[in-house]
Amino acid sequence: MGISNRTYTLRKCSYAVDFDRVRRGVNIVIEDDKIKYVGNEVEGDELDCSEFIVIPGLVNAHTHSAMTVLRGLYDEGELREWLSVIWKEEEKLSKDLMRLGTELAITEMIMWGTTAFIDMYFNPDQVRDLSLAYGIRSMAGPVLMRDKSVDDVIKELKALGEHDLFKPIINVHSLYAVDLAKIRELKESLNERPYIHMHLSETREELSEIKRKYGLFPIELIYRENLIKYTHGVHLGWVSSWELSYLKASLGVTHCPSSNMKLATGGSFPMREALINSINVTLGTDGAASNNSLSMFHEMKTAVLLQRHNYWSTEINASDVFMAATFNGYKMFGLKGGKIEPGYLADLVLIDKYQLYPWIENRILSHVVYNPPRSVDIVIVAGKIIYKKNGKLDDKFKKLINSLSSYF
Amino acid sequence: MGISNRTYTLRKCSYAVDFDRVRRGVNIVIEDDKIKYVGNEVEGDELDCSEFIVIPGLVNAHTHSAMTVLRGLYDEGELREWLSVIWKEEEKLSKDLMRLGTELAITEMIMWGTTAFIDMYFNPDQVRDLSLAYGIRSMAGPVLMRDKSVDDVIKELKALGEHDLFKPIINVHSLYAVDLAKIRELKESLNERPYIHMHLSETREELSEIKRKYGLFPIELIYRENLIKYTHGVHLGWVSSWELSYLKASLGVTHCPSSNMKLATGGSFPMREALINSINVTLGTDGAASNNSLSMFHEMKTAVLLQRHNYWSTEINASDVFMAATFNGYKMFGLKGGKIEPGYLADLVLIDKYQLYPWIENRILSHVVYNPPRSVDIVIVAGKIIYKKNGKLDDKFKKLINSLSSYF
Repeated sequence: MGISNRTYTLRKCSYAVDFDRVRRGVNIVIEDDKIKYVGNEVEGDELDCSEFIVIPGLVNAHTHSAMTVLRGLYDEGELREWLSVIWKEEEKLSKDLMRLGTELAITEMIMWGTTAFIDMYFNPDQVRDLSLAYGIRSMAGPVLMRDKSVDDVIKELKALGEHDLFKPIINVHSLYAVDLAKIRELKESLNERPYIHMHLSETREELSEIKRKYGLFPIELIYRENLIKYTHGVHLGWVSSWELSYLKASLGVTHCPSSNMKLATGGSFPMREALINSINVTLGTDGAASNNSLSMFHEMKTAVLLQRHNYWSTEINASDVFMAATFNGYKMFGLKGGKIEPGYLADLVLIDKYQLYPWIENRILSHVVYNPPRSVDIVIVAGKIIYKKNGKLDDKFKKLINSLSSYF
Repeated sequence: MGISNRTYTLRKCSYAVDFDRVRRGVNIVIEDDKIKYVGNEVEGDELDCSEFIVIPGLVNAHTHSAMTVLRGLYDEGELREWLSVIWKEEEKLSKDLMRLGTELAITEMIMWGTTAFIDMYFNPDQVRDLSLAYGIRSMAGPVLMRDKSVDDVIKELKALGEHDLFKPIINVHSLYAVDLAKIRELKESLNERPYIHMHLSETREELSEIKRKYGLFPIELIYRENLIKYTHGVHLGWVSSWELSYLKASLGVTHCPSSNMKLATGGSFPMREALINSINVTLGTDGAASNNSLSMFHEMKTAVLLQRHNYWSTEINASDVFMAATFNGYKMFGLKGGKIEPGYLADLVLIDKYQLYPWIENRILSHVVYNPPRSVDIVIVAGKIIYKKNGKLDDKFKKLINSLSSYF
């Protein structure tokens, strides 16, 4: 391929697909980590892309990477029962096995065209190191949960540091797993504006428990505690109408349709109302024990299907979920990404055009969402090619799986 | 690979997966079109399967193959509005383009591990010819709809003939697209026991229309007309409790979760009650214009997710949907297939084991359903290998897609 310069051109891309626009036969000039031109310009080395469809990289806005090792462990039971089995198993996980699970997840995500992810697990240092090694963007951080002290969380957070592709965040498991007093303590101990990633209003059990304990619904409580502007809420299957307006001030929300359906949470994330209220809606796969796939392509499809099913209406469409998985995902990172436009990050995914047919301009976005590709061919993050199909990463993936066998 | 004999052995399959049993490291001996042994026996040529997981072939129990050419044409609107756009477009389809669409669908289905499918479209002769050419099982037949006469349907049906891998059936589009008088006429004109494949109780509009017109709900009407025992009903999103028992006498039913969700039919196929009532539940992708994928792997996953979401319960599980897509699918064909047991049809799918990890016996079925493979490696129908990954069929597929471009 011979891309050796800091400036190069993806030449004659069969289609370049944004959530609001599809262009045919364009060149994409990349300089350093950004897109410089989209059009007829050519600069630097050239990569013939006439057999590729190009999309912005996908953002998995909520996952627990290490859980690939728990995939298929227990697929029954609603959330609380399921968690009781999973938590017991997690106590046995060694740091080595967590690292391997995370490496498997990162490899899988890259192979599915994911260029950035937000993680909640007990090994943020490993997430950071592996993300940087593989060249994928991530946010991760300590998890406030059970017996962990606020001091430890803050110490861990500071030790993580900020890097080109990595940002440290605070994970608060949930309002049912962490006492409110601890969350208050956390808030008071922080000098800077924190980023709090939290499971929120996932089940009706959570709602009734929080209401009983604090007299308010979960989102209401976060709002009253003045935490909403620091909060990235995840799941939100059970949102009251009056809580919707509170979410406007949040960092954004993540819908995890597969996980919610698999765990039979029954609720329904109000995507239409969230969009009307200009809430930043993103999508996440959740962990590999509750989905059990890490494919954001399939999460997009499941999201639009579930939304249509719930509303008895086709109002939510391919463009909405594609925007959620690309442009809105980058907003969570505070980055200008998720579109194929000059000035945006060169985080791109190239897909063999034979996977997305018929080749008609106004059908290509539909194919990406409703007939997701089986695989992607090239993944670019910050202008660097981090994956080529049937290359080193595929071999490494097999080696990782082989080494997993020694643990069971 | 060198399989030249009528008897051969899939040796040391890493796992052999049935809906009710997973076996490790077994050999599968195939003789002619059937499985002869499963265990330690070896006969004839040997194919090393230590890197493969083997599952029974998947049955797509409801599709409209030719519609691959309409994929992505129109993804908005609920069923009736959607149909009005699609029907207009279908009037323009030439027989050549229908053939190409069908060939693309058959190729895709095989590449997704589908070994048998039931088709409803205007080109059953082409479906028959192409199925036989590609070596996949199918049932297809004339469609009673709009201005087609019963005489023509019967003539077309007889002309199709019965073949090793092909059975002719009658397609009745639906109770809203065909007048009851015509269905009665059809019934009276038939000497033999017919197989009637029909969209049934798909939308609430259909229910209210049929109730208004005939005073009965759709399934009720089919029952009162004494047609239930000939009927293979599809969709059934809107089934009243009293209609459930009528379905017991039917040939079986097909749940098409992706299509129903995409078209926002809102209803909910009562899978739990159908299983309790021993109704033969199968799964179908529907056509590529309303799904838009033809992957039965993803249909299985969507089915279990939707059922859990609708019931607010995890009662429906991986085994239920895997049974529906394998064993129950073969029942619709009146064939002993869909299990890896002696005496069952040698319709099998081999999957690279690196796609389904961790390798723990009681998690393998979960992987197949909840983390579906991206591709399959070998497909066997009636003992014959009809697909090998990265072989001739993959090349043919590209050629077919290229030739499609000339039509648009």
